[in-house]
Order: sequence, then structure tokens, then C-alpha cells
Amino acid sequence: MATKSAPGLAGFQHRTALDKRAKPFDLYAIDPGATPFSSGDKVADKAMVESLAKDLDGLQDLLWADRRFKVLVILQGTDTSGKDGTIRGVFGQMSALGVRTIGWKAPTLHERAHDYLWRIHQQVPGDGEIVIFNRSQYEDVLVPVVNGQITKEQKLQRYAQINDFERMLTGNGTLVLKFLLLISKDEQRKRLQARLDDPTKMWKFEGGDIETRKHWKAYQSAYRDAVAATGTPWAPWTIVPADSKTHRNLMIATAMKEALVGLKLRYPPADPAMKGVKLK
Amino acid sequence: MATKSAPGLAGFQHRTALDKRAKPFDLYAIDPGATPFSSGDKVADKAMVESLAKDLDGLQDLLWADRRFKVLVILQGTDTSGKDGTIRGVFGQMSALGVRTIGWKAPTLHERAHDYLWRIHQQVPGDGEIVIFNRSQYEDVLVPVVNGQITKEQKLQRYAQINDFERMLTGNGTLVLKFLLLISKDEQRKRLQARLDDPTKMWKFEGGDIETRKHWKAYQSAYRDAVAATGTPWAPWTIVPADSKTHRNLMIATAMKEALVGLKLRYPPADPAMKGVKLK
Repeated sequence: MATKSAPGLAGFQHRTALDKRAKPFDLYAIDPGATPFSSGDKVADKAMVESLAKDLDGLQDLLWADRRFKVLVILQGTDTSGKDGTIRGVFGQMSALGVRTIGWKAPTLHERAHDYLWRIHQQVPGDGEIVIFNRSQYEDVLVPVVNGQITKEQKLQRYAQINDFERMLTGNGTLVLKFLLLISKDEQRKRLQARLDDPTKMWKFEGGDIETRKHWKAYQSAYRDAVAATGTPWAPWTIVPADSKTHRNLMIATAMKEALVGLKLRYPPADPAMKGVKLK
Repeated sequence: MATKSAPGLAGFQHRTALDKRAKPFDLYAIDPGATPFSSGDKVADKAMVESLAKDLDGLQDLLWADRRFKVLVILQGTDTSGKDGTIRGVFGQMSALGVRTIGWKAPTLHERAHDYLWRIHQQVPGDGEIVIFNRSQYEDVLVPVVNGQITKEQKLQRYAQINDFERMLTGNGTLVLKFLLLISKDEQRKRLQARLDDPTKMWKFEGGDIETRKHWKAYQSAYRDAVAATGTPWAPWTIVPADSKTHRNLMIATAMKEALVGLKLRYPPADPAMKGVKLK
């Protein structure tokens, strides 16, 4: 029931944007239906997700006590790719103390009066915090690209700005973890249809989803370019085959645990003056 | 009574950080007592400042109507170098609609939990706005450097982060104007003494000012390095000889006017549908 170790994850990570010799990254080569982290037994996989989510709860408590690091988790993916489900399944056991989720929508008039990173920067984690972005600054190199609202030059400029921004964050103690949830066009059809057919899911359906689905190819291409350009040594992308929800959670929970364990967190040392003090 | 034109200003601008062939910038070569923008007649100079401040008021109105640009003005300088006086003398005639001044103090506990640019980014101008920073992100490469709170490597990293940050701002429509107000150590002594001797100025005196004055050389050196490293093509520094308050205002007002005129501002074109409409 053991999850795959580090090398398994590395195969799905893209961090070579700055390495000119590296083979160009190709998102299309990854199968959304793959389940490399599965044990092959769905019940066992689900139990493992539960177990990992508990581990993550403990690690988050330690991160909050430690206060030396900040953690920014970015979840990107097309409609119905499972961003909400990931937050429930992987991060659901964590304390509200020290964890925040931001669901990014289209910018307001006030937000649009500033650079597109202005509202993003305001919400990044402080010391000890985990902040989960449900969508992110990457929307600004997807939607306007597909809709032809920015030029190619502006797109390249934004890639560079996002890379600079994330380097600044990591340089100031933030762990930036970016997950791209990959589903197939057919899986999306099933999930959208399920929303339409189920009165308890209908509220999640938006008319815009169908419009966006029409541009499936353009979005895939925009994702491919964005991931290739912004998978950096300081903030690599992890591509998550997500047609299987259990696999998606298993893989993200595994990656999260690995990343947090890698920080070598510790409870802050006690004040020597307080050592051995007996309260009366 | 005409102020000097562009070439006069260029001699005091540093924007060569990225030009490896350029002679290293040396702040010490600039005389704080120089008055290159003065006509030689103090009364005429003061009238010119008044006149320029009125022009700036008109230009700010146009900037606000135009909404295509954002303007960030950074005022840096040692204690008593005249940052407050500049805001009164140069920007005092502008409308409060579309103009904000931020006086940066030591960061709060909450601010310190984030990267040092976090609070800065929140206050940058929106479309059509002028925001004046009285002190700025540059304090984070001055105070901790003089106090030995960051390593040389961290200092260099911050220079790069600030350059990236300002490039992102300019890339998104912000004009970044940075002024370093230069006074001599003797002029500072006079101004601090005046604060101590005058009950209407005493409130501006802070005990820390004397402590900071003891580190005069270290601060000058930190300024020299910071200006050399962050005078970029997109956000050059303008060094302002500021022993003379009139000269300081004259030079900054001239530079401000030149920069705003350079934007080729215009009132937004009228909606064609509204053309010739006569209201009843």
C-alpha cells in the first residue's frame, strides 16, 4: 500500500524552463487517464489518501508552529478537473488556523486598474501559513491568450513576470507548489453532463463552461505553452493525471507530504529561561 | 527664468545598472550643495516652482482623466533631506482625487510575516493615479544593510528582486520615478538643530535621528550601492542636490513635468454616439 517515492513524482514535474538543453516540455505526452501512483486497489488507494491527509494535518500544525516557511499551493486545470475536490480530499483535514483557500474569479474593475499580480500578491501566505489558490495568476496567461486579448509579446512578458514574482516569493521563504490537474475532453464531458443531470450538482454548472469547452484545443495549447515557460527550478509544475479522482488526490497528497517533510520542520526551541519552570 | 531642459536632468540620472560597460555610478561625486537648476535668483526660482506646481496640477487632472498610465513617485533620502517639504512644495497643489501619499514606517509584525515587497505592492498606483512614496522598498536595502541584519548575498538578491518588481510595474503601465534627495552632513546638523530649537518643529525630531546620524558614512555607502544597483533603464534614479530647498523643489518639479508631458496624455475620446447630443 506504499505510495511511490520521489522518482515517481519527478517524472511528472516540469522545472526545466531555464535549461536550454532540456527537451521542450510537451503536456500532450501525458495521459490524463494514467494512474502511476495507484496501487491498483481502489479501496486501498482511498485509505491511503485518508492516511496522507491526516499526515498533512500534522505537518501543517508543525509548519504553523515553526513559522520559518510559507507554503503557496496553486491548483490549475480546466473546468471540472477537480480543483474543489482536491481541496476537500487532500487539504480537508487541516486546521483553519494557518490555512486559507482563495478561489480566484474574473478581476473586478478595481483589480483591473492594477497590474494582474497586484491582487495575487496580497493573498500570498505569511510565515507558517498554507494558502491554496483555486486558479491563480496563470489564468492571466490562459484566458486572454485564448481570447486574443494580449499579443504574443505580452504573453511572453507575463511568463517572465510570473517567473520573477515566484522567484521573489521563494527567495523570501515561500515554497511554491504548482499542480496542473489534467483531464481528457471525454472525462470533462461526463462531468459536465453529471452536473446537468444532478440537482445537487447543477449549481456548479455555469453557462460559460460550455463556451469554454468549445475552445478546448486552444486552452490545451495555452496550458502547454504556459507550463513549458513557467516550470522553473524554484517553482516547478507537477502534472497530475486526474481522470481518476482517487489517483489525483493520491498523487497530490503524496507530493504535498514529500514537500512538507522536505522542509525539515521542527517545533521552535523552548526559551532557555523557561526550562524546568514549575508553575504553582 | 526658463528651467534647464532634458540634458540638464540626464546628468543627474542613473540608469546604467544593466550596462556592464558603463562607468560605475558614484554618488559621492555629486555635490549636495550644487544648484544646477537654479536661475541664480531665489525669488525667480520660487516663482518657477509655484508655476511648475500649477502645471503639475493640470497634468495630474489629465492623467486621471486619461487612465492609461499609473505613476509611482519614490522619495528617498536621509532624515531631514526634505521628503515632506517636497510633497508640500511640488505635489501640494494636486487634487486629492487621484493622488495618494504613503509614508512608510518600520514594518508591523503582520507585514514582517510576508516578503518585504508585499506591503509595497498593495499600495502601488492604479490606472490614472499618482502615488508618492515617502520612503519605500529601498529602506529594505538600507537599514538592514547598515545594521548588518542581512548578508551581502541577501542584499544583492534584494536589489535583483526590486529591479524585477519595478520592471513588472513598468511593463504593466506604471511610470516609476525615483528621487534621491542628497544633503550634506553639515546641512543635516543644521536642520536637526533647528528642530531641537524650535517648538513648532520639535515634534519632527526623533531620538532615533541622532542614532542614525552616527552611522552617516554607512548610510551613504548603502545608498551609493543601492542606487548603483537599481538605477535601471525602466526605473532610473534621479539624484537631487537638496541642500537648497528651493533647488530641490525646482529640480523635482521640472523632472515631474518632463515625465508627465512625455506620456502625451489626452482626454479620452468622446463616445461617437454622444457627439452633438443636445440635452433638453
